[in-house]
Amino acid sequence: MAEHGYLMGLIGDGVRPSLTPPMHEHEATAHGLRYVYRPIDLTELGLPATEVGRLLTTGVELGFDAFNITHPCKQVVLEFLDEIDPAAQRLGACNTVLINDGKLVGFNTDRSGFASGLARELPDADLSDVVLLGAGGAGSAVADALAGAGVARLSIIDPDPQRAEALIAQLNAAAPAGHELVTRTGEAEQAAQWIPQATGLVNASPIGMFSHPGLPVDATILHPGLWVADIVYRPARTALIEAAAALGCAVMPGKAMAVGQAADTFQLVTGLQPDRDRMRSHLDWLIAEEELTGDLKDHT
Amino acid sequence: MAEHGYLMGLIGDGVRPSLTPPMHEHEATAHGLRYVYRPIDLTELGLPATEVGRLLTTGVELGFDAFNITHPCKQVVLEFLDEIDPAAQRLGACNTVLINDGKLVGFNTDRSGFASGLARELPDADLSDVVLLGAGGAGSAVADALAGAGVARLSIIDPDPQRAEALIAQLNAAAPAGHELVTRTGEAEQAAQWIPQATGLVNASPIGMFSHPGLPVDATILHPGLWVADIVYRPARTALIEAAAALGCAVMPGKAMAVGQAADTFQLVTGLQPDRDRMRSHLDWLIAEEELTGDLKDHT
Repeated sequence: MAEHGYLMGLIGDGVRPSLTPPMHEHEATAHGLRYVYRPIDLTELGLPATEVGRLLTTGVELGFDAFNITHPCKQVVLEFLDEIDPAAQRLGACNTVLINDGKLVGFNTDRSGFASGLARELPDADLSDVVLLGAGGAGSAVADALAGAGVARLSIIDPDPQRAEALIAQLNAAAPAGHELVTRTGEAEQAAQWIPQATGLVNASPIGMFSHPGLPVDATILHPGLWVADIVYRPARTALIEAAAALGCAVMPGKAMAVGQAADTFQLVTGLQPDRDRMRSHLDWLIAEEELTGDLKDHT
Repeated sequence: MAEHGYLMGLIGDGVRPSLTPPMHEHEATAHGLRYVYRPIDLTELGLPATEVGRLLTTGVELGFDAFNITHPCKQVVLEFLDEIDPAAQRLGACNTVLINDGKLVGFNTDRSGFASGLARELPDADLSDVVLLGAGGAGSAVADALAGAGVARLSIIDPDPQRAEALIAQLNAAAPAGHELVTRTGEAEQAAQWIPQATGLVNASPIGMFSHPGLPVDATILHPGLWVADIVYRPARTALIEAAAALGCAVMPGKAMAVGQAADTFQLVTGLQPDRDRMRSHLDWLIAEEELTGDLKDHT
């Protein structure tokens, strides 16, 4: 058992049942690390998102090493940070705060977690024409990761066209001059035009979660040439992933991003290389256990 | 590795080098527990003692299980507690706060730690006539433990006679009717009259610490019939303990109380029985390591 222990927290609404703390703790144990990771559930505590600043500041005093930050604090947390890494700055969202010499430094491992998940799970994915469902916080992180991975044309579908347009503007502002993405935005009805021609589809909308069951697009527009990724990881295989797999599509279920995010955070906090296969197996086990016991919850 | 992890903190001035956190963590590891114990050093943080209330309240929100509390917060912490156990209430001092269902419950394991140390180290101690040096916070805990152990006559020496008188009044108020202690108080010069007749001597003054070296009483008044206990544990053997041992006295060095306090707290927090011999061996090792590296500090 190493002398230095690690103390982590996850701040957000409804995070009590999150599987991220046990994922970290299990991986830490495999490395022989003393590691405690606490969910800090704002819903249970009756605290508004703006309290994240006070919790972080006192967390520094109480000896925390780092925090993960989730809904509804990923944006509001930025104003309390001393430093922000470029991806978090660009996305206007931070899901990981490291405490370095008492300073709060923000990162975005949602973005890096999707990118590392995609590279591991679908290394041969054709990135020439990708449709993204959802332009919210998760969608923004995914879009930025897709841009970084070299997607040629990105089509973003969201019920709020202004939100999708703002995301496009943000992506192109970040792109090197002359390397702007070919992008377009649309509402749900565009899916039927765009997906049949697309090479890839990513669901970053909430459809498919236990609380929002169903398919985010009509299954009849899927086709075998498409790779399909989801970021929803409970259930482990969403209706979208099942429908795509049945057609023979290459698929990336949501746990890839969940593992990528947790593994990237673990690496930032400890400086150690986590075993991503072991983390994925452990997450499979945690999800299977929940499904067996009927303890089904949405929260990440 | 058990699923439930424990998160502990130690709040007080100058606690960064305290050996209590590694004592807890080492014992927890032996029990297969995930356990992180953080020093929260008010001196480093530039915080006054009254901030203990804010730190505790936010500590509850951030998922702590318990705190140890030390100088200068043992008294001021009482006003922030939801429940106080009888010994802590009687002593007006709390060194351990458990968080039970979000409520802060105060205990005093300085008292129980001295009592359990005495029972283990000097089980045959003659308690008929005991001299106690020091009527401060530690002295009060020791006096209450001695009263509980059945001391017949207790003589308290302190440079502040009012403080010693107040302690006597408190002890007798707590005694069952008809079982009041025979007590007396005096200043340093009384030691030469009282110790030659006494059966036991306890040092609860700071004399003997690295920052207050020396003997709390003249070595010539010690005698082989006396048992001698110290609560100073760094150095591991104070000048008083060395002088008494050289005369053939039964001795209890300060580590007995340090181990008793840590073991009692560990038991309160985890509900598990710690291995007190293992904790003592580990403390010996920690102290020896400090003395080897020259990293000598006073704080408990």
